[in-house]
Amino acid sequence: MTVTAPVQCPVPPGRRVTATGEGLRRALDGPFHTTKQRWRDEVSADDILRDPTLGMADAREWALDKLVALAARGFAIAGFPAAWGGRGTVAESVAHFEMLAMGDLSLTIKSGVQHGLWGGALVNLGTAWHHARFLPGTISGELTGCFAMTELGHGSDVQHLETTITWLPDTGEYAVDSPTPSATKAYIGNAAVHGRWAAVFGQLIVGGVHHGVHVVIVRIRTDDLRPVAGVTLGDQGHKGGLLGVDNGTLRFDDVRVPRTHLLDRFGGVTAEGVYASSIPSVDARFFTMLGTLVRGRICVGGAAASAARKALSIATRYSLTRTQFLMPGSGAEIPLLDYQAQQRKLLPNIAKAYAYGFAMNELALQLQRVTDAAGADPQAGRQLETRAAGMKAMLTRWANDTTQVAREACGGAGYLSENALTLLRQDVDVFATFEGENTVMLQLVAKALLLNYQRSWGEMDLRGTAQATARMLGNDILERTAARSVIDRVLAAASRKPEAQQLTSRAWHIQMFEHRERHTIESLAKRMRSAGKLPVEASFAAINACQQHMLAAARAHTDRVVLEAFIAGIDAADDPYLASILSKVCDLYALATIEENRGWFLEHERIDGARSKAITESVDCLCLELRPKALALVEGLGVEESWLNAALLRADQG
Amino acid sequence: MTVTAPVQCPVPPGRRVTATGEGLRRALDGPFHTTKQRWRDEVSADDILRDPTLGMADAREWALDKLVALAARGFAIAGFPAAWGGRGTVAESVAHFEMLAMGDLSLTIKSGVQHGLWGGALVNLGTAWHHARFLPGTISGELTGCFAMTELGHGSDVQHLETTITWLPDTGEYAVDSPTPSATKAYIGNAAVHGRWAAVFGQLIVGGVHHGVHVVIVRIRTDDLRPVAGVTLGDQGHKGGLLGVDNGTLRFDDVRVPRTHLLDRFGGVTAEGVYASSIPSVDARFFTMLGTLVRGRICVGGAAASAARKALSIATRYSLTRTQFLMPGSGAEIPLLDYQAQQRKLLPNIAKAYAYGFAMNELALQLQRVTDAAGADPQAGRQLETRAAGMKAMLTRWANDTTQVAREACGGAGYLSENALTLLRQDVDVFATFEGENTVMLQLVAKALLLNYQRSWGEMDLRGTAQATARMLGNDILERTAARSVIDRVLAAASRKPEAQQLTSRAWHIQMFEHRERHTIESLAKRMRSAGKLPVEASFAAINACQQHMLAAARAHTDRVVLEAFIAGIDAADDPYLASILSKVCDLYALATIEENRGWFLEHERIDGARSKAITESVDCLCLELRPKALALVEGLGVEESWLNAALLRADQG
Repeated sequence: MTVTAPVQCPVPPGRRVTATGEGLRRALDGPFHTTKQRWRDEVSADDILRDPTLGMADAREWALDKLVALAARGFAIAGFPAAWGGRGTVAESVAHFEMLAMGDLSLTIKSGVQHGLWGGALVNLGTAWHHARFLPGTISGELTGCFAMTELGHGSDVQHLETTITWLPDTGEYAVDSPTPSATKAYIGNAAVHGRWAAVFGQLIVGGVHHGVHVVIVRIRTDDLRPVAGVTLGDQGHKGGLLGVDNGTLRFDDVRVPRTHLLDRFGGVTAEGVYASSIPSVDARFFTMLGTLVRGRICVGGAAASAARKALSIATRYSLTRTQFLMPGSGAEIPLLDYQAQQRKLLPNIAKAYAYGFAMNELALQLQRVTDAAGADPQAGRQLETRAAGMKAMLTRWANDTTQVAREACGGAGYLSENALTLLRQDVDVFATFEGENTVMLQLVAKALLLNYQRSWGEMDLRGTAQATARMLGNDILERTAARSVIDRVLAAASRKPEAQQLTSRAWHIQMFEHRERHTIESLAKRMRSAGKLPVEASFAAINACQQHMLAAARAHTDRVVLEAFIAGIDAADDPYLASILSKVCDLYALATIEENRGWFLEHERIDGARSKAITESVDCLCLELRPKALALVEGLGVEESWLNAALLRADQG
Repeated sequence: MTVTAPVQCPVPPGRRVTATGEGLRRALDGPFHTTKQRWRDEVSADDILRDPTLGMADAREWALDKLVALAARGFAIAGFPAAWGGRGTVAESVAHFEMLAMGDLSLTIKSGVQHGLWGGALVNLGTAWHHARFLPGTISGELTGCFAMTELGHGSDVQHLETTITWLPDTGEYAVDSPTPSATKAYIGNAAVHGRWAAVFGQLIVGGVHHGVHVVIVRIRTDDLRPVAGVTLGDQGHKGGLLGVDNGTLRFDDVRVPRTHLLDRFGGVTAEGVYASSIPSVDARFFTMLGTLVRGRICVGGAAASAARKALSIATRYSLTRTQFLMPGSGAEIPLLDYQAQQRKLLPNIAKAYAYGFAMNELALQLQRVTDAAGADPQAGRQLETRAAGMKAMLTRWANDTTQVAREACGGAGYLSENALTLLRQDVDVFATFEGENTVMLQLVAKALLLNYQRSWGEMDLRGTAQATARMLGNDILERTAARSVIDRVLAAASRKPEAQQLTSRAWHIQMFEHRERHTIESLAKRMRSAGKLPVEASFAAINACQQHMLAAARAHTDRVVLEAFIAGIDAADDPYLASILSKVCDLYALATIEENRGWFLEHERIDGARSKAITESVDCLCLELRPKALALVEGLGVEESWLNAALLRADQG
């Protein structure tokens, strides 16, 4: 591609973004540029940045106050039905969440609890009556609610929750109970202090018949915030981060709830006291209900990525100005970013930030399509769930690692709270666990890939998975992404060119990613098929021995999906100069990912030793090539400059 | 080796350690068992555990109070001359530090600042007069001091500090000055609140002649803790961890200090006003002075490893009792540690904890030998410095990663402050930076290896290194460790056996580690030699391009040193049952390390794809084999049970 003069993007007065940075920002924002730019234009640092030294009690009040203020201004409430005050599509609600996460993650998760989880349960599992009754107050933040799913005994195993919701025909109510200590709802946001209501997940029992997990709205605190009789509330207190989120416990002892308070979109008890559902199978109903909650998982990955973008923006800007040691011969001090080791810490992660950013955009649009289809395309729904699980695990892992790398790249200064990095690191930590523990998420992905989407996801009996796997061998196992037409074009064009085997050939990247995914899944399927044939006692051990393999397959799949999204994102950029930069960033993403997995590629003789070393050299060279563009690249990550609340970036710092 | 019945170790009444755990603990404590057991027997949780919710101001006071109390009881003050109240050898002082770090890292670093750095500067750089004047109060904690080396502008580049210490012949004093903003001393422990004195590093100027970096004792606060005139003190406030350590800044404006206050063991101004030193070269004097401070670097690595041991103890015990999901066929819930993914998170890290533990013991003994030699063996001193730098970087990196893995292995519970893991993680973070930034440390190691110890370490002109490298090619480059005779025995025995190429052959492990080290250094040396021949302008770029290679060489070297220490540690265990367990743990350490580096081994055709996959399978199998020993293995890590201040380990927790 010919490199032309820089694109001329108008820089609004008072802003300090380079033209290239502005162009990259538009490209990476993609379909959400207007929404995201509105945040940068209208939301001040004061609106969303927390003083990192605030103690827990103050941080909790701060988070609620800021949330209410933002909601009043129409931020953080996209995705609700317009009839009840929502503004924007469900895809835009993901974009809003990503922007909020560039401010403070406690505020972000407070919003996630209130608007995303509690509000999302009302919207997706409730009906018009629930919407009318609860949504206006939920949106404004006045009607504070909890999403009471997780129990102490069952963190990741939602299908086996112990809480009971028992229909009482005599009074026409439900009784909500926590039958054992392990049934205690735990880690519930808004439970410790602020929540007035809770969407409680439990086993519905009608006339002695179990109908599986349902959700009921329970009043937990009075208007003056005293616990309601029968509800025992606990404060889980100080955490390793997210001090502004009041996580707590809930226990129920014969708490009575009116019949109308069951969120009965997919099943409930009629006025006549009879259970009725549009979905006869208990399992299918469970997965349908959980499926509507996929937005939370998508948002968590996006928010973690925002934290990583911010950390990279701070560390890269610091590395451009901070010098250390003298250049031999010249006597000038060397900026940190001129060192290969510093480039290696930051630039491949910036490339990943772009890759994951384009993939997040695609995922949000996919969520929109599934939402719009309203259940008409179950396969698309399951594919979305798989992708959301994989992206959540990969992005939160990367965000954990990258915020730490950024801290270390800033040395001792990075450890001072005034430089924002340690708060980011601490807050993003638990993103690896909540909304689906990462190891569990990757296993979901692997199982879905194995079953070629023939079965519902989430079901944890691996033996059944293994047995079913036998059916899919031989089919093409690569789930196609929305970018497929672009990918096919790249592959077709490359096959006519002699450079198809060059390290910077996009077609070669695609083939490498596809090969790793296909081979990892196929070999896993063979192992699982053998394991599934064993007697039940032996099959756990055999399947358990495949667990690392499952994680590898899920990562290989998600890497390929991300690469395709990056390629499609470049294809959509209409400015050739920007496209040329993005293409180099994509080279770095692709080659750094291949380098990380070079053990696998060498083991499977897809590359030899000489080529492996050449890949490492190429990554080094791309870092060096992109180093002069580092400022524009981090500008492109889209974190408004005034939100980079790091003292080390101020000119008055030594 | 034949496995016999478990060794019978008497379990003291009231203790709850298994016999095997007790035996492993003795083996890993090694020569420091008495010292370490004294901590476990005599130091209570209340003595050393901080409430993780304490705010900064309270945490700072808590740390000083606990430090003074421990010092009064004879803990944390080994390594001082017995004449002034010290109790124990310098090697034991490292063991004390490791034990203290199983409690609270703020308290540990507070001790490190007061006794290790400030006290160590007095002991090692001062003379009898300084000892008599300052040591008693330093040991008791009454005479609080700072180690004022790092400057804002020069974090890692100590040789180019800007602070000046100017001899004033007219008054017979020194004037201490901070000539620029970047000369501000920064990140200095005890500076923000508690310090009364400071050991200030600066350039000594006598009669206009620069004599390089020296250290002078400066009064910074009065007895009632007001700053002394001419001294400007700053509080660096809230940090990402170590809230109990009061880091701050120091600036000096013509602060006058009596002649006697220069720590003049290696050079100073005589009563006649003439500079005199036993070491004529400015550079050699600088490195001699820095060399005496090596203990701090050793202690930091050991303390980080203690934090990792504690995190592994908590997460492993939790994984033994916490269940999740049902076993197919049986209906019983599955303990987390039965899952392959959980075993993979914890067991290879437990194996590393043993490996690093044996290597730390050896390093402490090496420090003892160098200290005892009192400069008579400069090569041993340089070797110690190299090893300390490599161990510091490797152990602090591992501790950062492992505390995070442990947190995630405990899921949401791991994120609650009451479960201790997030505090460990936050506190250990900066260990990767202080006492020598890890990337800089690994480069020091690589340069020392390249130069085959012909030149002083620490000098940052890489071009000189590259030129000198030409001289060493062709020599054997493996620095031998104290374990060499054991290693030679293993290699000799193996060469007579057919199983020498089996994956669990110790000789094969040694050969793999040695091959990686030798090849990485030799190829680096060749590249550096070429780079050194270039003109000065080009050589920076060429040498900079080798930076990742340098880091790889340093890691390969340190891995080999650690493996040898592990093998020697097993050799010293006299009980065959314990030795058989340790041998399996060593297999896991060796194979997991080879697996981590399998990309390299494959690239260099040292293994093929089939063998690489077999190594991964072996690691899986060893995890499964060691899983029934998991409790004993973490007991062996030596963290007293009452110090495991994690609520999730209490029986009353769901």
